[in-house]
Amino acid sequence: METKTLGELAEYVGGKVTGDANTVIKSASTLNRAGQGDISFLANPRYVKQLHTTKAGAVIVDKARDDVKVPQLIADDPYYAFMQIMVLLHGHREHKKIGVSTHASIADTAKVGTDCDIHDYAVIMDNAVIGNNCRIYPNAYIGEGVQMGDNCIIYSNAVLYDGCKLGNRVIVNANATVGEDGFGYASYKGVHHKIPQTGVVVLEDDVEIGAGCGIERGTLGDTVIGQGTKIGDMVAIGHGTKIGAHCLLVAQVGVAGSTTIGNHCVIGGQVGIVGHINIGNNVMIGAQAGVINDIPDNKIVLGAPAIEARQAKRAYSMIQNLPEMRQNIRNLTVDVEKLCKMLGVENEATEKQTKK
Amino acid sequence: METKTLGELAEYVGGKVTGDANTVIKSASTLNRAGQGDISFLANPRYVKQLHTTKAGAVIVDKARDDVKVPQLIADDPYYAFMQIMVLLHGHREHKKIGVSTHASIADTAKVGTDCDIHDYAVIMDNAVIGNNCRIYPNAYIGEGVQMGDNCIIYSNAVLYDGCKLGNRVIVNANATVGEDGFGYASYKGVHHKIPQTGVVVLEDDVEIGAGCGIERGTLGDTVIGQGTKIGDMVAIGHGTKIGAHCLLVAQVGVAGSTTIGNHCVIGGQVGIVGHINIGNNVMIGAQAGVINDIPDNKIVLGAPAIEARQAKRAYSMIQNLPEMRQNIRNLTVDVEKLCKMLGVENEATEKQTKK
Amino acid sequence: METKTLGELAEYVGGKVTGDANTVIKSASTLNRAGQGDISFLANPRYVKQLHTTKAGAVIVDKARDDVKVPQLIADDPYYAFMQIMVLLHGHREHKKIGVSTHASIADTAKVGTDCDIHDYAVIMDNAVIGNNCRIYPNAYIGEGVQMGDNCIIYSNAVLYDGCKLGNRVIVNANATVGEDGFGYASYKGVHHKIPQTGVVVLEDDVEIGAGCGIERGTLGDTVIGQGTKIGDMVAIGHGTKIGAHCLLVAQVGVAGSTTIGNHCVIGGQVGIVGHINIGNNVMIGAQAGVINDIPDNKIVLGAPAIEARQAKRAYSMIQNLPEMRQNIRNLTVDVEKLCKMLGVENEATEKQTKK
Repeated sequence: METKTLGELAEYVGGKVTGDANTVIKSASTLNRAGQGDISFLANPRYVKQLHTTKAGAVIVDKARDDVKVPQLIADDPYYAFMQIMVLLHGHREHKKIGVSTHASIADTAKVGTDCDIHDYAVIMDNAVIGNNCRIYPNAYIGEGVQMGDNCIIYSNAVLYDGCKLGNRVIVNANATVGEDGFGYASYKGVHHKIPQTGVVVLEDDVEIGAGCGIERGTLGDTVIGQGTKIGDMVAIGHGTKIGAHCLLVAQVGVAGSTTIGNHCVIGGQVGIVGHINIGNNVMIGAQAGVINDIPDNKIVLGAPAIEARQAKRAYSMIQNLPEMRQNIRNLTVDVEKLCKMLGVENEATEKQTKK
Repeated sequence: METKTLGELAEYVGGKVTGDANTVIKSASTLNRAGQGDISFLANPRYVKQLHTTKAGAVIVDKARDDVKVPQLIADDPYYAFMQIMVLLHGHREHKKIGVSTHASIADTAKVGTDCDIHDYAVIMDNAVIGNNCRIYPNAYIGEGVQMGDNCIIYSNAVLYDGCKLGNRVIVNANATVGEDGFGYASYKGVHHKIPQTGVVVLEDDVEIGAGCGIERGTLGDTVIGQGTKIGDMVAIGHGTKIGAHCLLVAQVGVAGSTTIGNHCVIGGQVGIVGHINIGNNVMIGAQAGVINDIPDNKIVLGAPAIEARQAKRAYSMIQNLPEMRQNIRNLTVDVEKLCKMLGVENEATEKQTKK
Repeated sequence: METKTLGELAEYVGGKVTGDANTVIKSASTLNRAGQGDISFLANPRYVKQLHTTKAGAVIVDKARDDVKVPQLIADDPYYAFMQIMVLLHGHREHKKIGVSTHASIADTAKVGTDCDIHDYAVIMDNAVIGNNCRIYPNAYIGEGVQMGDNCIIYSNAVLYDGCKLGNRVIVNANATVGEDGFGYASYKGVHHKIPQTGVVVLEDDVEIGAGCGIERGTLGDTVIGQGTKIGDMVAIGHGTKIGAHCLLVAQVGVAGSTTIGNHCVIGGQVGIVGHINIGNNVMIGAQAGVINDIPDNKIVLGAPAIEARQAKRAYSMIQNLPEMRQNIRNLTVDVEKLCKMLGVENEATEKQTKK
């Protein structure tokens, strides 16, 4: 762990200091837990009050605030600056250099690059190709003919089925499955016949796959996760689906097969997306939404069925008013019937109708 | 990979050819990616336009179309014919014949049938019985006393807890768990006491379990997945639940304990079904539905709470109209109050009510 | 398996017998499957009719019933009594005493307590500390520096990432993942940069984690699962979230990061809870609910968005009436327009509005 002054950190992230630039910073912490030697940050306005009570050594903010007593590091994007400082002070997980274990199972025809760590009981099947500087954790399974670039990390018990292709710097977390057969059956006279799934899964550079995910291989083409896309835990991706670059899919999302998703999309937790549709670029989908139609570029949607977000927020929050609305309609109907009868007007809305 | 003429394929699937029956077919592909030597198919009307632009060597369709330029294979059920041709041309995954690895852990009291492949670091515990011609992939775990029929495939890191029973031709995908304890606790004075789960899981013939699933064992009886039922990725089945034959459960479905589901049901992705209910035969449940009551045979339901599908489609899509409906009610109330006051009628619906 | 008389069982659970106290009981079963020698119970009123047809040797009930023909064991809390009897008659899973396998991989710097079973191909990394009387099943992975108390059970293929801390009597089911990196990225100019996740996961005493779960480690603090909390299969817990003591989280729940949940909460299947909120003590959340706001103590909520349960049951079940309500509004509008026109009153609600 490194120790830096606030001034050094500001220089590192291209920010400015308000207060004592010689403040010593050893680590990062949240506003309410930080103490002397810790730097904290404000990225979510929900926590703005904690700026005034924090005991942090310094805070990263987007603009200097007179009412904050601790030294401030002013950065255009405080969360990005925080990330940079986290990497500088704490670094990413260090992987023990163990080389290739004699208790790993590596097929004679497999190729393993230089500087790889292949742990005990990891299995690499025939004709698999592992790039340089990869970490394959215990009990991970690399299927026949898998191709993996450089600097990949495959955590324990992750499974890559035969033929899958990984770019560079791909991370697959524990117990994730990549390339299992797509859920494809032809149902004939009530019996479901398995269709061979001839595609593979392609994980492009810098993809991260969460723990316990399942990314199905395609039936006729490949399932593709685009460059830099990050996928949370227990996400299910259907066969032949293509997800663009730099998307975020939060935990427990399900995307059915043969759907196309553009670049820079953010998909909230537990969202479900049907198969065979097209979702554009820069689309945001709120948690638990159910998406059943194409979505054009730059839309924000939520709800099940998903609709434009501003409308959805009002509409879905109004479900709780339904009993009251229904009562109002009944009251109106009584009144209108009375009025119509009094005036001899034939009326359409009747109490009978509203009660059926 | 086999090569066939279109005529041979038509004969194989019991169909007819329109166009050149000598067209050589090497593989199958989608309409928009297929080229010379590929056969494609139309099963989803969404793709009918692609019939006119496809560069496929031939297409499988349900009736001859004059406006399609490439040779056609006419089949009663194009998707079933496509499946048959996929199996013929591509075949299912080939499993390397490796026999029983000396790096597998097989208890002395376990029995392994003939022609099995037991891979490195697979574990077979005491008194387990494995049928003939089974494939147990690396790091799979077969618990004590598990009984498995013939021709089963257990992929890497799948776990079968003690005592589970598998029929013939059962497939369990990677990282799936079968037979873990049911989520059963007796809560007493605020503390949850674990109840022994004495049942097991029974997977009948031809069942396929998706990657990352969890199929709980029963508390007092068995959890049963009926013959030919196919379960997608990350599906959770509760303790003591019984699912009939030839069902399809798409990814991320959750079925709570002690529920009974009939035969030939299709349950969409992310559906949740409560415990202790009965679902009939031939029931279809739309994606993300929430099922809280019994469903009789042959029903199609969707929505949360789930209702009959035709009604649900109209009703759930009308949630987006709630703000407008509420405004209309308010406007009506203003009008009706005015009318009532003018005519000296006592009115039930008042602006005051609708605003509360 | 033990054999007891009904009288002995009544004494054991502090209950009373109505009928023959010498009835011999060998095991427990459900009302409709129980036969001679079986004891059954009534805890769910749904099954009250089966009391009259059961062939059980005896039944556990909360009060003596004249119309029940079989001997009765009267207990204040029949389900708790049933649990006690299940443990007495059947016991929990017995774990074969195998000691430390020579085919396990245990780092020289790891410490393993007394009376532990460490199975084949289990992996224990550097500086991990395992308490006494723990069972580590095949292919489980215990990361560097993990600390585990006494009497823990880690099932096959479960993965504990580096540094996680487990109390006593913790159970982690197969294929569960504990301590993977939180889903934390700083997005800058469209690219997602991974933030080091410096917290760990703490599982306090008596926690049980279901099969296929993913419990993320925290970014800056720890993710904590409180004492006695039981988590079902495939539950996703976000980074830095703190769940109190004695909660139940049913299968497929998702809780985003930095959320706090109190003690004694019950969270139904497939519930989604957003990040950065506070949920009080004794809160109950119905299956599939979507929770986006703080919930105070003792509330029962359901629906998406979640609202107070009594209101939610009425409101959500009324969605199916939306088409009818809309038609009623249209009819009312026609009537009111007619009335207004007749009386020369300017009207607010117009047919034109309701159709837009």
